[in-house]
Amino acid sequence: MHSLSNFVFTRVLNEDPILKTLTLLGTVPVITTAVTEGHATTNTTTTSDELEVQPIILLIEKTHFATQSSESDITRRISELLSTGSNDIYHWWNAIILEGKAHDPDLKMTVISPATEAHISKYSRQDRKMITETAEIYHKAVLPWIESQPRSRIQWVYNILEGLKEKENILLRDNDPDIGFIVLPDSKWDKRTLSSLYLLAISMRSDIRSLRDLKTEHLPMLKNVRDKIMALVPTRFNGIASDEIRMFVHYHPSYYHFHVHVTHVSAQVPGSTVGQSHLLDTIIDNIENIDPDYYRKASIRFALGVNHPVYTLIQSSLTGPQ
Amino acid sequence: MHSLSNFVFTRVLNEDPILKTLTLLGTVPVITTAVTEGHATTNTTTTSDELEVQPIILLIEKTHFATQSSESDITRRISELLSTGSNDIYHWWNAIILEGKAHDPDLKMTVISPATEAHISKYSRQDRKMITETAEIYHKAVLPWIESQPRSRIQWVYNILEGLKEKENILLRDNDPDIGFIVLPDSKWDKRTLSSLYLLAISMRSDIRSLRDLKTEHLPMLKNVRDKIMALVPTRFNGIASDEIRMFVHYHPSYYHFHVHVTHVSAQVPGSTVGQSHLLDTIIDNIENIDPDYYRKASIRFALGVNHPVYTLIQSSLTGPQ
Repeated sequence: MHSLSNFVFTRVLNEDPILKTLTLLGTVPVITTAVTEGHATTNTTTTSDELEVQPIILLIEKTHFATQSSESDITRRISELLSTGSNDIYHWWNAIILEGKAHDPDLKMTVISPATEAHISKYSRQDRKMITETAEIYHKAVLPWIESQPRSRIQWVYNILEGLKEKENILLRDNDPDIGFIVLPDSKWDKRTLSSLYLLAISMRSDIRSLRDLKTEHLPMLKNVRDKIMALVPTRFNGIASDEIRMFVHYHPSYYHFHVHVTHVSAQVPGSTVGQSHLLDTIIDNIENIDPDYYRKASIRFALGVNHPVYTLIQSSLTGPQ
Repeated sequence: MHSLSNFVFTRVLNEDPILKTLTLLGTVPVITTAVTEGHATTNTTTTSDELEVQPIILLIEKTHFATQSSESDITRRISELLSTGSNDIYHWWNAIILEGKAHDPDLKMTVISPATEAHISKYSRQDRKMITETAEIYHKAVLPWIESQPRSRIQWVYNILEGLKEKENILLRDNDPDIGFIVLPDSKWDKRTLSSLYLLAISMRSDIRSLRDLKTEHLPMLKNVRDKIMALVPTRFNGIASDEIRMFVHYHPSYYHFHVHVTHVSAQVPGSTVGQSHLLDTIIDNIENIDPDYYRKASIRFALGVNHPVYTLIQSSLTGPQ
């Protein structure tokens, strides 16, 4: 467990004033124990503690306003109003929240430690471009790259599926090896605000890398995910109806093990933009009613960071070998 | 100038946990002076102070993190870290900002006072639901309703196409009756911030009501729109490359005359969410490479306000005649 009092700031990786998020790169000192073998004759070993600096990423986000009950009296908890302007019936103020501080956190943080170069690149602000992945480019250039990814990258997924981690977070577990999946809250959700509900459904199968792999044989799994989540949400989250959730799949996903994003229909999460996301129902309809090979044939267009390996792969396929 | 200490909470009009905003309706007491005319003969008037309650709207928003200089030491200003979970290299914490409180406001507020019914309606959350329009429901229930819409509803579109209105806004005009279209800035764009560029392309043809009507014969028009806009934007808006724009079509659209939305790839406009929007390139690919009848066959799922006529039409088709 880290103490942030040792955090040494390196640079700001990203920030978003609309979402009130800030991503920092820094380092923390970590003590590692080095073992030195002595002479074989004397059979001694000495250990020494060494100080190492480890890169860590802090994803910091302002919290939303607290529960329903306290919303009504937020006006009693603000102070030091500072007027910043006025026009007709419109008045602008800055304010400070004074009371209730001890109860409601100001910040929600995700710490990634130790952070690799891949993490640093993933969380850095990137120029994004629209690009089209044809079926041909996918099979020739992108799929081989996906297959070369080490399994260790998604160890955290297997930890969850095998019940080794986040056991306490699991909202639903269907262990069927073909159509089974687990549901847990997405780490971006505060776990209380219903209108920003964000869950993640992760397939038990590890042979579906992305929506490109989906075909007729997966329809029972896709429908199982859809139907069980539509039954789960209203019973588990009182106040959300089954037609108030949006279920979608990212392409490209951030990890190549099939999973479905589940959000409240009001939650305009950044990744739900057209071109990044595909509705689960559209996927089912495309395979079932339009063409069983839809996702093996389709040209898929999306926005991608110019530093993403897939961006480079597609770009060099388009321009051809030099 | 109001004092919020007198604010009486009525209800939450809206909130957005992603943007960390909260909109409250309430009232404040206002003292008004009533003048009472006395008898004409004595020529006296009396004044009395009356207490009236006035509706006001508070738009409250958490502030973004403070300036660059203090970002680096935010980790020194947080306290009461509370771990909320951990998995592999990921650690989640809640935290409270302690120091620096006196300098950085927590909240940015807009007060609308007095607020009219129109303001209250404008700032209230609209309940939206996900609903699926099958091809059958479209043809049986929705299309007849679209056809019953008076042409006068979209008179403003014809005014633009015929050059009677907004002439000065036209960025491109292609008068070809089959593949032609005009481009103008969307009214939501401020016409200067490139990263929020928002244009609208409106087809010259008036026989395409929505994407449901699109088929092979429209491919030249769709490609003409795509190619000419990709050429227009970089020349007209210096600094935006042709692969930095997102082109999409709404379903359902807000008016039934074919048009395409054009935004900067960084502009996460609300209407660009999956299920509301369909990428122009995906539409072309679906018709050209997947199935010429794609949009006449597809089940289309989207979020719709429960007061929208189409929502009611689909709902009653699903439940059948009583």
